[in-house]
Amino acid sequence: MRGVSYVLRPIGVVRSQLQSREDCPKQGREGAPDAWLEIDSAFVDALEGIAIGSEILVLTWLHEGRRNLLKVHARGNPNGPLRGVFATRSPDRPNPIGLHRVEVLNIQDQNNIRVRPLEALDGTPILDIKPVLTDCSRQ
Amino acid sequence: MRGVSYVLRPIGVVRSQLQSREDCPKQGREGAPDAWLEIDSAFVDALEGIAIGSEILVLTWLHEGRRNLLKVHARGNPNGPLRGVFATRSPDRPNPIGLHRVEVLNIQDQNNIRVRPLEALDGTPILDIKPVLTDCSRQ
Repeated sequence: MRGVSYVLRPIGVVRSQLQSREDCPKQGREGAPDAWLEIDSAFVDALEGIAIGSEILVLTWLHEGRRNLLKVHARGNPNGPLRGVFATRSPDRPNPIGLHRVEVLNIQDQNNIRVRPLEALDGTPILDIKPVLTDCSRQ
Repeated sequence: MRGVSYVLRPIGVVRSQLQSREDCPKQGREGAPDAWLEIDSAFVDALEGIAIGSEILVLTWLHEGRRNLLKVHARGNPNGPLRGVFATRSPDRPNPIGLHRVEVLNIQDQNNIRVRPLEALDGTPILDIKPVLTDCSRQ
């Protein structure tokens, strides 16, 4: 697979009060705020079927992630052991794709989706949205 | 965000008996087989901490997905209603990233990981691996 690459084009952007990595809780459920998903109007048709009150998975591009790190201190604790990044949710990873499970709070103008809780910086590109499957074990 | 793009470099490849989209069940738990994750040896360090018996999320590049479709028939049923792709798990979507929750069955030579069930074609590029968080509501 070496040398092969694929191109991602964002479908939208996160609007949040989180302005820097230092503002972010370590996991979304530990105090992350509500945020807006501003979806590009070209993708309005792709949103049909997403309802207020439902849960969705938001995939993001963690644009501040360091792609050359293979090990990190779990949960950012410098006193903890080093772990392989694939055994952590660190934003530092070869392909820094973020995965966030959120509730849809509101939808405005068809393409602005209010969600919570979202641990993602303001300006984070959005790559994809998926439904949560009803059997949570399927994910 | 228009015009911005990001480059993904696969970390490995799926080895599976599934050879075509017609072979695939609609969701992994509906009969998908065991498969191997062949991780590039450059990323062995990033796997440290992944244990046999644990559950992981595997992110893939659904290389046969059609990126220009915004609506599809849910679960591939041509008699069903059209839905926005972001309200489905269709492989046809603007950024065709697949998300699979699997169990680790075996690890060989540090970088070959046997998992099940995996609904992904043989040759599917692997983008990322993440741990399943213990509270399943977190994803």
